[in-house]
Amino acid sequence: MITQDDDVVDRDGAGKRRLSRRNFIAASTGLAGSLVAGRAAADSLADVPPREVGADLSGRSERSQYVKISRIPEATPGKRNIDPSDAINSKTPLDKLFGSITPSDLHYERSHSGVPDLDPAKHRLLVHGMVKKPLVFNVEDLKAMPSISRTVFIECTGNGWENWKKADPDLTVQNTHGLVSTNEWTGVPLKFIVDLIGKERDSNWMLAEGGDAAGVARSIPLTDEILNEAFIAYGQNGEPLRPAHGFPMRLVMPGFEGNLNIKWLRRLKFGDRPWMTRWETARYTQLQADGKAEQFQLRMDTNSVITSPSGTMVIKPGYQRITGLAWSGHGKITRVEISTDGAKTWQDAQLNSPALPKAQSRFQMDWVWDGKPTKIVSRSTDDKGNLQPDRKSFIAVTGSNALFHYNAQQTWSIDETGRVRNVLD
Amino acid sequence: MITQDDDVVDRDGAGKRRLSRRNFIAASTGLAGSLVAGRAAADSLADVPPREVGADLSGRSERSQYVKISRIPEATPGKRNIDPSDAINSKTPLDKLFGSITPSDLHYERSHSGVPDLDPAKHRLLVHGMVKKPLVFNVEDLKAMPSISRTVFIECTGNGWENWKKADPDLTVQNTHGLVSTNEWTGVPLKFIVDLIGKERDSNWMLAEGGDAAGVARSIPLTDEILNEAFIAYGQNGEPLRPAHGFPMRLVMPGFEGNLNIKWLRRLKFGDRPWMTRWETARYTQLQADGKAEQFQLRMDTNSVITSPSGTMVIKPGYQRITGLAWSGHGKITRVEISTDGAKTWQDAQLNSPALPKAQSRFQMDWVWDGKPTKIVSRSTDDKGNLQPDRKSFIAVTGSNALFHYNAQQTWSIDETGRVRNVLD
Repeated sequence: MITQDDDVVDRDGAGKRRLSRRNFIAASTGLAGSLVAGRAAADSLADVPPREVGADLSGRSERSQYVKISRIPEATPGKRNIDPSDAINSKTPLDKLFGSITPSDLHYERSHSGVPDLDPAKHRLLVHGMVKKPLVFNVEDLKAMPSISRTVFIECTGNGWENWKKADPDLTVQNTHGLVSTNEWTGVPLKFIVDLIGKERDSNWMLAEGGDAAGVARSIPLTDEILNEAFIAYGQNGEPLRPAHGFPMRLVMPGFEGNLNIKWLRRLKFGDRPWMTRWETARYTQLQADGKAEQFQLRMDTNSVITSPSGTMVIKPGYQRITGLAWSGHGKITRVEISTDGAKTWQDAQLNSPALPKAQSRFQMDWVWDGKPTKIVSRSTDDKGNLQPDRKSFIAVTGSNALFHYNAQQTWSIDETGRVRNVLD
Repeated sequence: MITQDDDVVDRDGAGKRRLSRRNFIAASTGLAGSLVAGRAAADSLADVPPREVGADLSGRSERSQYVKISRIPEATPGKRNIDPSDAINSKTPLDKLFGSITPSDLHYERSHSGVPDLDPAKHRLLVHGMVKKPLVFNVEDLKAMPSISRTVFIECTGNGWENWKKADPDLTVQNTHGLVSTNEWTGVPLKFIVDLIGKERDSNWMLAEGGDAAGVARSIPLTDEILNEAFIAYGQNGEPLRPAHGFPMRLVMPGFEGNLNIKWLRRLKFGDRPWMTRWETARYTQLQADGKAEQFQLRMDTNSVITSPSGTMVIKPGYQRITGLAWSGHGKITRVEISTDGAKTWQDAQLNSPALPKAQSRFQMDWVWDGKPTKIVSRSTDDKGNLQPDRKSFIAVTGSNALFHYNAQQTWSIDETGRVRNVLD
């Protein structure tokens, strides 16, 4: 076991622990792995299997037989192990991913009427309302228009709802935060469509409607930010959208609630006021502490979570790599701080580059765990100066009637056996 | 059919054609799609199928039944429709992709002894040679070290070899250029490993050896650039490497020959001279015009290709979107020019942002085809000032004995029926 003497902890002038070769080597005997030196190398290599000719090359590279990775379908919050037909969402395995990009097949899903696989040859997008020239597009029309590609997160407004009132200690980070993912989306800027149809001056709202059986439809205010950033995507991580993510076309609304990123997009209607669809009256309104409901709370807030070590993992004393993801609907993540003593003191984590606006950013920090029970927490700050709130301040402002936009700091407790658990704070 | 009058072409002050709402609308009647206005909308929507409840949500989102997309396995250049066990590579369908990222399962493969699926629990990386402290790592050790994520292209040095001596007119861009792909790779900086082992001062070469049956092994000069940029990856587009791409670990060498990005990495040996493996004597040497062979021509040069319209496609007169990919092993792509008159005149294409160093960059330009036979070509420039050569200059310098590092401009001819063909220039 490693003690936190100077030789290991290696603090810099400011007392901040920094990663160095010295502390890594000194601490590394605590690793589960086989980091061995010199003469031991031959022994360590003795078990390596002999080389064998591999499988044939193929049309598609499948995953390794040793990689078990998938989303978890859920009915309502906390209802897992369900009949698949009861699933309303499936969550991304954040604890098993690296970097920033989410594999297309593991991007989270949230659907109100299953996953339709629409025929792109028959699918149409009607653009009409208060416009000079209503138009109908198919997906080939979109592909002929100027395109942008942008790597952004999409997050269900319900992400985090498991922890609103209590914390089930046995939840993984996939359970608590798996309704957010980051992909490179490709499509046509909304601005280009708006110019084509000739939007009328007072037409400052847009209804976006999906082609799913539920017909999810949301009213979107045409702010400058949305006019400049929204786009109609047909590509996802280089390939056509997958049906679960809106094939053949979806709206992408960087930084805003997942449900506004209308999948299977079939209609954009322009007008001078919101349509008050059931998706913005009965659903996706936020019940406040005073019992009133807030509508159109559209932007996803500054957030972060440590993905390793995280819920249900078991760690050993000694050197650890803490890593996680941070994101903000306001813009770029500029800072992530980590506490390893239950939010008493904080240290800056390293942010991987490039930190793209409205995308998940990977952060990391080295840590030597002394084997005593503690709590680890992260908090992020974005380039608009928004700091992710602790749970107490968050509940003080929001109350606990609400269901959406949970972005309080996530705390993981670690007991003396190294077991990591989900706790409120 | 569209004529190239001012109303359509809409040139700016410099005589450069630019995309505008006006030229798009005017030209769009030439589209194959259904861009229709006003009252016609109802008719155009008549065929849209009724909404239906979709499939159950799932652990992984599969592709649409309507999306047919895969790599093409090949034996030697031009040998397709082969027995899978004869395949030595499989090429990425560049003509069917969007944006910059290549889906993990469609990243090109090049293998000398098939695709092994190594057990990560048994796999080891030995780091030894002229070092102070030889070490052995497993994949869990790597995951505990500081990581970087970087979006870079990897390109087989043989990419383009189909067009060295002649151009088969029926090749697609997948056939001519499909041995290059771009992924977000995650792993440990080589510099961190080098610091851990204590590389000796004169130890300025590194042997990297794969765990495949062929035991591909290359000597790599430890220039500052390589020491600062190379990394040992375990992640690919957010998930563990796929077996075809080196699971559980591979070397990533941004900007350099694909074969240096050693897959199934099992050994790094440090020394003061190259090892002269058969991979750098018998193979992967470049036969010059004078009959001598050049060794260690490692960097991939400035390149680009129009992916649409491209070989075997058929276009109609009128508005077209020209799009393609550009990349350079020297750094960032700063400019792509397109000629639509067989390299007589050139116009700047629009480059999608962000243009990342040593990654594929998407470019695009609008064009109104007048229906007359012509040739379209692209050429790229990188931030070190390297301009992609035309074929004549390229052959004048390189001769035609060579097999590797083909980066001459790619020309597609278009005949009066709109059929696009692969031609030399």
